[in-house]
Amino acid sequence: MRSLNATSLASIVSALGGDCIGSSELLISRITSLENAISSDISFLSSPKYASQFASSQAGCVIARRADWQTAKAAGFKGAGILTDDPYLYFAKLTQWWKRQTQLGGATTSLIHPTAVIGQRVQLGAEVQIGALCVVEDDAVIGARSILKPRVTLGSDCHVGEDCILHSGVVIGADGFGFASNKVTGEWVKIEQLGAVRIGSFVEIGANSCIDRGALEDTVLEDGVKLDNLIQIGHNVHIGKHTALAGCVGVAGSAKIGAHCTIGGGAVVLGHLSLADHVHISAASVVTRSIRKAGNYTGIFPLDDNASWEKNAVTLKQLHSLRDRIKKLENLRK
Amino acid sequence: MRSLNATSLASIVSALGGDCIGSSELLISRITSLENAISSDISFLSSPKYASQFASSQAGCVIARRADWQTAKAAGFKGAGILTDDPYLYFAKLTQWWKRQTQLGGATTSLIHPTAVIGQRVQLGAEVQIGALCVVEDDAVIGARSILKPRVTLGSDCHVGEDCILHSGVVIGADGFGFASNKVTGEWVKIEQLGAVRIGSFVEIGANSCIDRGALEDTVLEDGVKLDNLIQIGHNVHIGKHTALAGCVGVAGSAKIGAHCTIGGGAVVLGHLSLADHVHISAASVVTRSIRKAGNYTGIFPLDDNASWEKNAVTLKQLHSLRDRIKKLENLRK
Amino acid sequence: MRSLNATSLASIVSALGGDCIGSSELLISRITSLENAISSDISFLSSPKYASQFASSQAGCVIARRADWQTAKAAGFKGAGILTDDPYLYFAKLTQWWKRQTQLGGATTSLIHPTAVIGQRVQLGAEVQIGALCVVEDDAVIGARSILKPRVTLGSDCHVGEDCILHSGVVIGADGFGFASNKVTGEWVKIEQLGAVRIGSFVEIGANSCIDRGALEDTVLEDGVKLDNLIQIGHNVHIGKHTALAGCVGVAGSAKIGAHCTIGGGAVVLGHLSLADHVHISAASVVTRSIRKAGNYTGIFPLDDNASWEKNAVTLKQLHSLRDRIKKLENLRK
Repeated sequence: MRSLNATSLASIVSALGGDCIGSSELLISRITSLENAISSDISFLSSPKYASQFASSQAGCVIARRADWQTAKAAGFKGAGILTDDPYLYFAKLTQWWKRQTQLGGATTSLIHPTAVIGQRVQLGAEVQIGALCVVEDDAVIGARSILKPRVTLGSDCHVGEDCILHSGVVIGADGFGFASNKVTGEWVKIEQLGAVRIGSFVEIGANSCIDRGALEDTVLEDGVKLDNLIQIGHNVHIGKHTALAGCVGVAGSAKIGAHCTIGGGAVVLGHLSLADHVHISAASVVTRSIRKAGNYTGIFPLDDNASWEKNAVTLKQLHSLRDRIKKLENLRK
Repeated sequence: MRSLNATSLASIVSALGGDCIGSSELLISRITSLENAISSDISFLSSPKYASQFASSQAGCVIARRADWQTAKAAGFKGAGILTDDPYLYFAKLTQWWKRQTQLGGATTSLIHPTAVIGQRVQLGAEVQIGALCVVEDDAVIGARSILKPRVTLGSDCHVGEDCILHSGVVIGADGFGFASNKVTGEWVKIEQLGAVRIGSFVEIGANSCIDRGALEDTVLEDGVKLDNLIQIGHNVHIGKHTALAGCVGVAGSAKIGAHCTIGGGAVVLGHLSLADHVHISAASVVTRSIRKAGNYTGIFPLDDNASWEKNAVTLKQLHSLRDRIKKLENLRK
Repeated sequence: MRSLNATSLASIVSALGGDCIGSSELLISRITSLENAISSDISFLSSPKYASQFASSQAGCVIARRADWQTAKAAGFKGAGILTDDPYLYFAKLTQWWKRQTQLGGATTSLIHPTAVIGQRVQLGAEVQIGALCVVEDDAVIGARSILKPRVTLGSDCHVGEDCILHSGVVIGADGFGFASNKVTGEWVKIEQLGAVRIGSFVEIGANSCIDRGALEDTVLEDGVKLDNLIQIGHNVHIGKHTALAGCVGVAGSAKIGAHCTIGGGAVVLGHLSLADHVHISAASVVTRSIRKAGNYTGIFPLDDNASWEKNAVTLKQLHSLRDRIKKLENLRK
């Protein structure tokens, strides 16, 4: 990461709050892990289970909970502390503050890069940033402070809310995958996708992810949804507030995912299903039925060395008949 | 969706055929589901199993089969009807007609957008459209009426047939993944990919999908193939006519997929396999062997709540030894 | 593939070595398989198991091992030979030589295409090529002879080594997927990604693949790493030398993959895991734990016809209880 010009703990606490223990004059120039930190670094303890790292850490300052701070002192930790109820959340806010100080930026400093192609009747909110080589088609709407990184496509009629980030390569509003079969010729006849995409505020969409436009109604992502890279969202999908999808997830058409859900990387959600709020799907699992109840769900074939896998996989194809053989043995016992 | 200026049933039937029952003067301004329709909407009944929706539907007109129309009347449906043998196919054609009327369009109305980068000796058929910020490399060929949406790459020497649609972010003709291992150094030595990509007519390729060029011969997609978003087609793959692949599918090098196949989202087809015509692979299944016989094939680990999955997954690693234990018990019975 | 102006075996052997058996004046204009070759073609025998193809092959010349050449002669093969220890490696080098002769090229012949957008303080090595419509953000570094194909994004502060190839649509340095949960509101709070991406030399990255920048430290790909298309590499992943990943693989944040590994298409590696050197993961397998030992690992649900799969999948959900029933039967025997 880029170092800051050394900055005092006092200025951090003044911006982000928290109680400073030790010298608030201490100068910090980097954020790093407790393990790697030196005396000019600030670090954080996200969970008490990592508290053993205090003993050897050379960090100049640690962000910690009040309870863990006692552990730090007991372990002989020499640095200063910033005490707060949720150190990981504080760390997140610190990274945001840090970025503003260092002003990391892309190739574009202007609001609308001159190489971006903007269609007709496009509505842009205040302080919208559109990166180099983006395409914003006719009648698209982008809310205040939203950022399109370079090389994003926003299709016609699609709406993006306020404070969103669309990363490079994102495609919003390509046609949904809809065809009717001509039963006589076996050809696929295109169903024109007449809906659009509506994205709420504070939504972030990762690089090269795709959100298809709806067939008749719109595809919808509610406020605060976070999508990682290379995700496919089919037409007419609806994703509830503050739901997060990890990389390479595919959500088929018309699936309805609740609020505050998480879906692990590479998982697949089939079409026309409903997932309740607070449903958590493990990575690489396949959701083949609706889920009405909050909770954690998984379906992964366990990894094994090749030879063991092969034996078990072969036997798996006989599993149902094995069940019948057990039944038979049980009946013989009666 | 965008509303039409109200248009009469007569003009729809005049363009698309079908028998109009009731007032052909009725004015329609939207297509929507039977459930949500109001009196200025047209809807459709794709299957008799949804016929119960007739009772409460306020649709101004429904596209239906003759047999289902009786059900509609019996259920007290008040609207008009367009009777046809295949309502879903009629609906598809209606969406096409609708789009032409509303002239939804992207940022580009010119045929070749001025920001597109076109190489040397490129051959373009009549009425080809190339969107903003596309790259068409040297010696590429694009057939009549094909459309490259914004930000598509078409590589050198690659051919696209007539009436194709390539969505935003598509990459045709990147190098196939070919390396020889230098057994002495452990390094990978690049095998230059000297083939190209040949795409037939009426092919549609979804956003951010990739079709690699062949190593020596070409990678081939035959007429009428439909690919969804984020699909990877390896070098020297051959896909037969009217086969459709859903989002996030990966097809490894030199696989040969027949005609009229469907492959569900997130499925993987390994390299050098052959699939017969009319093979249907379920979503997220992994095709590890050639399939000689038409039919439906699946391989998905069933989703379960976390705790149940964990117990079953652990036991799965002992499955082969469980089989042996059953065998032993059976032998003891003899 | 593009034919060469006929070129003599002598010129090939002079460039690439090997012992020429038969007329070195023979003119060659194409590389192709033994099966399809005609007398003006050169072919290769990568493994003795394909030696039966010699009998009917019309190839003008074959690249073969000394031992296999005897088989060729015994089978009545009439063509010339180039004898070498590793014919497949020789073939790879021949494709490279061939490409240089035919000078296949993209739309761009200039080193930096005029439509590319280059940020401030970017450092470019000798003979770097940047294709049309690329974006290279501020402070990025690209080593000598590396090639960015059209429509690549290289983010700020990211480093690419020498002799690399980044294919069309690649995104290097988008933000890693990092959020802290605000436990009070249920909202995700962005953790700014302050690290960058460091890519070694001789790395190739396939179309539309994404390498995220690190949260605090950098994401690292060592020398000789080869990535296929549509691959997702999360923040702070570290991939060792000469490791190759096939298409559609997802590697979650902070995973550490050793050197000389291979990961099959569509596989998923979960976050914070370590894989030893020389680990080989089968396609579509999910790596849920660290692997300390070199070897081959697999976890795929076997494909079956739909009806069989359904019966076995249902039974799989009872597998743990089946184990208990077997145990019970065994105890009854005692």
